[in-house]
Amino acid sequence: MNKQQILRKRPTTLPESDTWELVSSDIPRPAVGEVLVKTHYVSIDPAMRGWMMDRKSYLPPVQLGEVMRGGTVGEVIESNAHPTLEVGDILSGWGGVQQYFTTNGEMQFPVDTSVLPMQKYLGVLGMPGMTAYFGILEVGKIKEGDTVVISGAAGAVGSLAGQIAKIKGCRVVGIAGGTAKCDYVVNTLGFDACIDYKEGKVYEDLVAHCAQGIDVYFDNVGGPILDAVLARIRLNARIVLCGAISQYNNTEVYGPKNYLSLLINRGTMQGMVVLDYITRYQEAGAQIGQWMLAGKIQSEETIVEGIEGLHPTFMRLFNGDKRGKLLLKVNAE
Amino acid sequence: MNKQQILRKRPTTLPESDTWELVSSDIPRPAVGEVLVKTHYVSIDPAMRGWMMDRKSYLPPVQLGEVMRGGTVGEVIESNAHPTLEVGDILSGWGGVQQYFTTNGEMQFPVDTSVLPMQKYLGVLGMPGMTAYFGILEVGKIKEGDTVVISGAAGAVGSLAGQIAKIKGCRVVGIAGGTAKCDYVVNTLGFDACIDYKEGKVYEDLVAHCAQGIDVYFDNVGGPILDAVLARIRLNARIVLCGAISQYNNTEVYGPKNYLSLLINRGTMQGMVVLDYITRYQEAGAQIGQWMLAGKIQSEETIVEGIEGLHPTFMRLFNGDKRGKLLLKVNAE
Repeated sequence: MNKQQILRKRPTTLPESDTWELVSSDIPRPAVGEVLVKTHYVSIDPAMRGWMMDRKSYLPPVQLGEVMRGGTVGEVIESNAHPTLEVGDILSGWGGVQQYFTTNGEMQFPVDTSVLPMQKYLGVLGMPGMTAYFGILEVGKIKEGDTVVISGAAGAVGSLAGQIAKIKGCRVVGIAGGTAKCDYVVNTLGFDACIDYKEGKVYEDLVAHCAQGIDVYFDNVGGPILDAVLARIRLNARIVLCGAISQYNNTEVYGPKNYLSLLINRGTMQGMVVLDYITRYQEAGAQIGQWMLAGKIQSEETIVEGIEGLHPTFMRLFNGDKRGKLLLKVNAE
Repeated sequence: MNKQQILRKRPTTLPESDTWELVSSDIPRPAVGEVLVKTHYVSIDPAMRGWMMDRKSYLPPVQLGEVMRGGTVGEVIESNAHPTLEVGDILSGWGGVQQYFTTNGEMQFPVDTSVLPMQKYLGVLGMPGMTAYFGILEVGKIKEGDTVVISGAAGAVGSLAGQIAKIKGCRVVGIAGGTAKCDYVVNTLGFDACIDYKEGKVYEDLVAHCAQGIDVYFDNVGGPILDAVLARIRLNARIVLCGAISQYNNTEVYGPKNYLSLLINRGTMQGMVVLDYITRYQEAGAQIGQWMLAGKIQSEETIVEGIEGLHPTFMRLFNGDKRGKLLLKVNAE
């Protein structure tokens, strides 16, 4: 049988246990020219919260009654005369939150698991990795000597964005929740410092750690932390708007009251969506892979077993109970 | 005697009648190498509100007890062996809110009044003109066919920014307060449409007038109008943060709740300060002058007589009782 998580309700604040329904149906049969994929991991992303809302965005909303959208990595277990894909191929793509799916291969990319395990292709070599890479380099335009601040620093995107900034010769200050995460950010990831926002003095800590002000801020969280950073930016600062995890479950978004600091400091705040860089994913993947093999990039996954656990796993994005890339393991390997 | 307006109190909300004090002193004597300037017009600018606040900004704050900072245009009436300036020269620069001042010529620029009257050098050919020119072209990066929205459309900066956008082949929609101003914006300045924000349906009007969304927004006002525009931007939109007149007298700034529209639409919000373009003022002035002489640019000044009237004149910036460049005439010509 194929277990699937179906979107049943559009949450207005935090998703609840009946937001999705777990259903079982027959494992689908691949049509001619298709393959059947057994999914191993589903990526659990903050972006999923946005896809559940019925509004115009960079992707159409998931419809009620549909399988929840999700990035996946899995194995081809049957081919019905597909021209190129073979049994045993590992595919990264949009499989959704289910155990099996059929595909003609569109938006599914074969990945090489001979050197790195498949789950890396949902994290450091997947969308979070691409987001970090293009966000910090193309939108943040970091250069040697810059002071760079990264929120969500222990997360899949932030951890990589900061490590890339370190490689490029920046001073990098992370922001994360709790002592354990901050230790990880400094001692494992190699950031110069990490601010524990749960101590409630982010602005004061930014003053202490960014004596000359902030050149680049990679924002994954929004809210009052964004305001604290805005109050501390330098001339010509760049703010990469990548996400706003603190705001996704609010009925009213916290608007940054210090946005006029952009005016005084000739700063730029720019939004990014990783899909725009799809033609350059290969370039980024090659570079990140090289850094990983050279030991310059550390990455981690928090893996939760069982498709049944979508809701509590998803909640970890918001309560912070995870490190690095959050994955749901939906089938045994 | 020399009448001067001295900053006595730092306003926390709207300036009051005792924010400045009018004092009289002897007309100063130029030292050797200096000239004495009789000021004709003082520019009354929203930026003055920021200069009164005791905080780090792009210029140091005006100190209590100092003559209020202000842009001026006036006539050299005495030279004490100045190497280049002569009696009769007209200077534009930072004379402050007073009737006379001495200067060695630093930050004072001789202007040619043979074709255009001196007050134009505080408006369309002065800082507001430069702000509009570099803001719409360099920060807004307008191109033919763009839909451009301008708030403060009947003001000194907005009126010019919109006319430049029209010259460059954009569709231009203004936002202003009241029917009379909107008529002026459309019928005299030649904008394609103008939204009267006092009717309280800015978002709906933006939907009506910008069917395809907004490519460039030149923001002079901030507040809920900025939010309405954010909700209507197109892919890769540029927002020029030039000012926020609606927020300058608030103790807490209204943060744009729709800022995440920048993320979804890969938009950019960028602050600007005209002083950064000082080396290119001449280029801009020549171009604007050419457009004026060709009849492509209309400009207007609201002139209030008497240095005594600084406070009520300044209040017109916030109650909207003015059109084009607001000037205080502090001496008879």
